[in-house]
Amino acid sequence: MLTPETSRCVMTQLVMPGHTNGPSGVLFGGVMVQWIDVCAGVAAMRHSGGAVVTASIDRLDFLEPVRLGNVVLLQAQVNYVHRTSMEVGCRVEIEHPLTRQLRYATKAYLTFVAIDGESKKRPVPTLELVTDEDRRRFAAAEKRRIDRLKAAGRNPT
Amino acid sequence: MLTPETSRCVMTQLVMPGHTNGPSGVLFGGVMVQWIDVCAGVAAMRHSGGAVVTASIDRLDFLEPVRLGNVVLLQAQVNYVHRTSMEVGCRVEIEHPLTRQLRYATKAYLTFVAIDGESKKRPVPTLELVTDEDRRRFAAAEKRRIDRLKAAGRNPT
Amino acid sequence: MLTPETSRCVMTQLVMPGHTNGPSGVLFGGVMVQWIDVCAGVAAMRHSGGAVVTASIDRLDFLEPVRLGNVVLLQAQVNYVHRTSMEVGCRVEIEHPLTRQLRYATKAYLTFVAIDGESKKRPVPTLELVTDEDRRRFAAAEKRRIDRLKAAGRNPT
Amino acid sequence: MLTPETSRCVMTQLVMPGHTNGPSGVLFGGVMVQWIDVCAGVAAMRHSGGAVVTASIDRLDFLEPVRLGNVVLLQAQVNYVHRTSMEVGCRVEIEHPLTRQLRYATKAYLTFVAIDGESKKRPVPTLELVTDEDRRRFAAAEKRRIDRLKAAGRNPT
Amino acid sequence: MLTPETSRCVMTQLVMPGHTNGPSGVLFGGVMVQWIDVCAGVAAMRHSGGAVVTASIDRLDFLEPVRLGNVVLLQAQVNYVHRTSMEVGCRVEIEHPLTRQLRYATKAYLTFVAIDGESKKRPVPTLELVTDEDRRRFAAAEKRRIDRLKAAGRNPT
Amino acid sequence: MLTPETSRCVMTQLVMPGHTNGPSGVLFGGVMVQWIDVCAGVAAMRHSGGAVVTASIDRLDFLEPVRLGNVVLLQAQVNYVHRTSMEVGCRVEIEHPLTRQLRYATKAYLTFVAIDGESKKRPVPTLELVTDEDRRRFAAAEKRRIDRLKAAGRNPT
Repeated sequence: MLTPETSRCVMTQLVMPGHTNGPSGVLFGGVMVQWIDVCAGVAAMRHSGGAVVTASIDRLDFLEPVRLGNVVLLQAQVNYVHRTSMEVGCRVEIEHPLTRQLRYATKAYLTFVAIDGESKKRPVPTLELVTDEDRRRFAAAEKRRIDRLKAAGRNPT
Repeated sequence: MLTPETSRCVMTQLVMPGHTNGPSGVLFGGVMVQWIDVCAGVAAMRHSGGAVVTASIDRLDFLEPVRLGNVVLLQAQVNYVHRTSMEVGCRVEIEHPLTRQLRYATKAYLTFVAIDGESKKRPVPTLELVTDEDRRRFAAAEKRRIDRLKAAGRNPT
Repeated sequence: MLTPETSRCVMTQLVMPGHTNGPSGVLFGGVMVQWIDVCAGVAAMRHSGGAVVTASIDRLDFLEPVRLGNVVLLQAQVNYVHRTSMEVGCRVEIEHPLTRQLRYATKAYLTFVAIDGESKKRPVPTLELVTDEDRRRFAAAEKRRIDRLKAAGRNPT
Repeated sequence: MLTPETSRCVMTQLVMPGHTNGPSGVLFGGVMVQWIDVCAGVAAMRHSGGAVVTASIDRLDFLEPVRLGNVVLLQAQVNYVHRTSMEVGCRVEIEHPLTRQLRYATKAYLTFVAIDGESKKRPVPTLELVTDEDRRRFAAAEKRRIDRLKAAGRNPT
Repeated sequence: MLTPETSRCVMTQLVMPGHTNGPSGVLFGGVMVQWIDVCAGVAAMRHSGGAVVTASIDRLDFLEPVRLGNVVLLQAQVNYVHRTSMEVGCRVEIEHPLTRQLRYATKAYLTFVAIDGESKKRPVPTLELVTDEDRRRFAAAEKRRIDRLKAAGRNPT
Repeated sequence: MLTPETSRCVMTQLVMPGHTNGPSGVLFGGVMVQWIDVCAGVAAMRHSGGAVVTASIDRLDFLEPVRLGNVVLLQAQVNYVHRTSMEVGCRVEIEHPLTRQLRYATKAYLTFVAIDGESKKRPVPTLELVTDEDRRRFAAAEKRRIDRLKAAGRNPT
């Protein structure tokens, strides 16, 4: 059964000097997005059982600066499926070295398209919604998709 | 005078093997976002005359795959300013090697916040709108900001 | 309570062209070791609640070649503690894209030393052994340490 | 019409920690040369309408140190053409964050050879000289080529 | 004649910010292992006259921290040969900038397997032992191999 | 005694996919220059007993393409000294995997300036010329320096 949970991808990273933006030791935004793109992409590969390409970043918020030496946890899961595409949510947290408490650092929604060996779009299996949280995320993702198509002057189908 | 034009940042990149996603030779999405983050960040630094941090990627669409060996043009300019933040638009095009014709590959909107030496927010100068295109982009960015705040259940001010 | 389980670090990676050794598309061993060093180091940071340095790689076996496009799972946990040092085991598996079955690819044992702000060794908390597997791993790690000291002509204490 | 101007390539870069040479925060010379090689190579690709290889760096002067956080502008254009090869000049400037004033940081002349699909040399189109500056640069490049061949004990043709 | 000496590979590296682990400026262990893997791999390629893959890191000790700005010397040579595999020893030293004195920083033993064009194992030439040091290293490597097989419950042949 | 020989730096590199320019598998020129800059810089550090900065690349010729999988040998030594600066020559060769024969791939001359802790120029020790080859290289470097200053309309001293 293909649920959001079965697609979940967990990634741990450690922020090193080559990842930072300068003498302040803050993580370079572009590096964070690379990590998110890989983590979310693996969730989409798992749900669709094959290759995917990133179609869009629908929203990505840097909520807290991430710093040199921080341990960072990324978690991604498929929220929503529409024919050949999937919305994946990715949550990034900073782990406190002593208390292990997590601080929300970055939140992102990305859309991936499943492709076959000739780079043509291929259909994606239905997403089985199990928990209330699954249903809440699915509905929110569907609303984001419709709002986006309306804002672009297109007709959601 | 600080117009969108005076903030414009132009960046040329050449896609090499280390930038690609695998044997298909397609540019890895995360690398493209790194380039966009730097190009858009320089536009925001130019308008605000100092350091900035990326606050969010408001939308980023991969319209066409970019491939190994492609020459890629990135252009970013400040579209909109609100107190301490700026929306920057970035347009990425692939240049045909012979005809030099440009094909639209990726489009992105990012928000940056201007900061001072102690990482505190600092006010950003007003954006002087000169052309009709400047005014159209400003209005569209303002609408995106209001829609976003409404969708997040917050009150735009 | 500090058990092997509470130190566990999970990391997912996707093998890209820049990680490979050449046209055959096999993952470069040095890149794999970098991933293992970070994953195992985070497990040691979690157990010891602070900074650590890699003291040695006690053994690392490449059991199966990892290839371009593979999704790779790394899992590390603290096996054994002795005063200021920790042995961390790291298991690397390749995930089949369709069946999600895991194939054992690389196995490694590393020793980390906990350090304080002045790079001096600091004591590490006791490891609470809960499961039989915990006790088996602890005993095997202790034997590896004693064999190693004997082979080096030193007296294990 | 193929003039030096139509070959011009503009590249903006932002100096980050991974680009620097050490704690002093000065840009590593090798990174600067990589940027110049790409920028100048794109100018040669544009003039010749296809693939090129770097044949030589005829001269490259580091005039001013470039530092962490600097915005750097690279501009390259074809100066001179001889059968299958092109001399490209590249000018690198540091932009002052407030005044936007440019400070000359590095100057380079490189020679590229145009190649076809089988890595064989192919003829390059004539360079149309429009401005006096175009003619001055062409003559200087021609003199550099003749001096170089004489110094190597070869007969310029 | 194929002696340990004829396989010797010498590599010099300079530690830069992107190689370090954080603000302390200590070389990241994973980068050191990458350098060792390449240096030792070239020694194995030289002895076997073709392609090799890393089979295992049998032991790697970080004896002294390596720091930003250090000049580092790596030396690797084949110690021992068994059918299709080779044990390579690698010694890493830090060079004092003024006195040129060397300080032992890292010591490693790795096993490589020689492969043919179809990634099948191929036999490796005999190692000619010339000096007493050659014979001492060969015997020590043979003992490590036997101890390792015994520890793994296998029968050395 | 400080001779060209005592400054000599040897570096071995193995060309991997991330170093190449595209599907043809040819080494990217910018990567080669990075290797040369480090190798030649270490020779200059050795002669001057401290920190140096690259002042110029006086000439760099790509004589043969270097390919994926090639083992590459770099050798650099100080050719010439003038007050606070040093000319370093660097020779790059490709090693044949079976015959170990060397093929000349790239030749470069760079000038480095010795600096003290405050980035001020500092005097460099005299270069002791021992062999005829040392004297030939010194004279050729001196001629290059004089020709260069004349070409720039300056008076050599």
